[in-house]
Amino acid sequence: MQINRLTQQFQFIIEIDRLKQILRQTLLTDGSRRENSAEHSWHLAMMAIALAEYTPEGVDLFHAIKMLLIHDLVEIDAGDTFCYDVQGNHSKAEKEAQAALRLFGILPANQGSELRLLWEEFETGKTPTAKFAAALDRIQPLLHNQQTEGGTWRIHGIRRDQVMKRVAPVETGAPELWPFVLQLIEDCVAAGYLQESSAAL
Amino acid sequence: MQINRLTQQFQFIIEIDRLKQILRQTLLTDGSRRENSAEHSWHLAMMAIALAEYTPEGVDLFHAIKMLLIHDLVEIDAGDTFCYDVQGNHSKAEKEAQAALRLFGILPANQGSELRLLWEEFETGKTPTAKFAAALDRIQPLLHNQQTEGGTWRIHGIRRDQVMKRVAPVETGAPELWPFVLQLIEDCVAAGYLQESSAAL
Repeated sequence: MQINRLTQQFQFIIEIDRLKQILRQTLLTDGSRRENSAEHSWHLAMMAIALAEYTPEGVDLFHAIKMLLIHDLVEIDAGDTFCYDVQGNHSKAEKEAQAALRLFGILPANQGSELRLLWEEFETGKTPTAKFAAALDRIQPLLHNQQTEGGTWRIHGIRRDQVMKRVAPVETGAPELWPFVLQLIEDCVAAGYLQESSAAL
Repeated sequence: MQINRLTQQFQFIIEIDRLKQILRQTLLTDGSRRENSAEHSWHLAMMAIALAEYTPEGVDLFHAIKMLLIHDLVEIDAGDTFCYDVQGNHSKAEKEAQAALRLFGILPANQGSELRLLWEEFETGKTPTAKFAAALDRIQPLLHNQQTEGGTWRIHGIRRDQVMKRVAPVETGAPELWPFVLQLIEDCVAAGYLQESSAAL
């Protein structure tokens, strides 16, 4: 056992407990409260397990799961930015990059760099694994909004065209799941959970 | 895309959202509220990533992470049983076995069996991977109790001998972490966060 490394690793483990206090806009499926980013990350990792058979060529599932587990850690410092908040998303990248430096910097250097690279791979979204992980991150809130009969879409007056833009990465990141996503959105509009785009009215 | 399989898989993904509502006895590290089993599972998976270098021979880390992600799912039906509740732990096994049948049964048969086997491997605790996963599950509440200056130990009047019995599996499951655990308990007793065993008084 190397005492210093282990101390740093346990410091990191204790520090990341704070992700359980970062609230997202998404509601739990029963609408009782907002979801936090730690349980959200767990849910995405579980989605990767349940939907493993739909990973496109070139996706490393273990790598994707690790990515999903760490992808929101930066919110401990940077907070959660609502995906439809245009202004908030302008300053997001810089705040999150700082957060990544601090948080992964708690770990021993080699390990911290490795996890920061993993987070950057997710953020950059170029590899098949990052694209698959991002697709799951886009699909999960859809399910929650459908289960809560419109949930955060209703609260924030979000329309179909905004949702379509938001979920677009699913088409390339997880093509086998794309028809399901399109159908789900169609059903939500038909049920009145999601408003038609302004242009279509 | 096979519609039926995918429908079952999404039904499972929606169903397991309920794990976010299962409260454990453990408090968050700032003591603000009780931890739920979904965010706890995320935290354990993160521990497996951070402590990967201490896995004993024969541990499959990816397998361990999947195990940690699913190990508490049965609590959706069976609830969380406090580890020091002797009576509650008598009826726990039967309730959890029923829960596993129902929950993993939502998935397509081959996939459901695979995850049920993974859960059973964790519960049986015979393989190096299951032992390592169990060790992390025993260490995490220690960290929380230390951070909260006694947390659930104080609330329930738990003593050192009970904690020692509870963490014993760490010695074989993650031997490299065992000295850290012993030291942590020593420090907690010295700080007055954990009471000495009755016999030692």
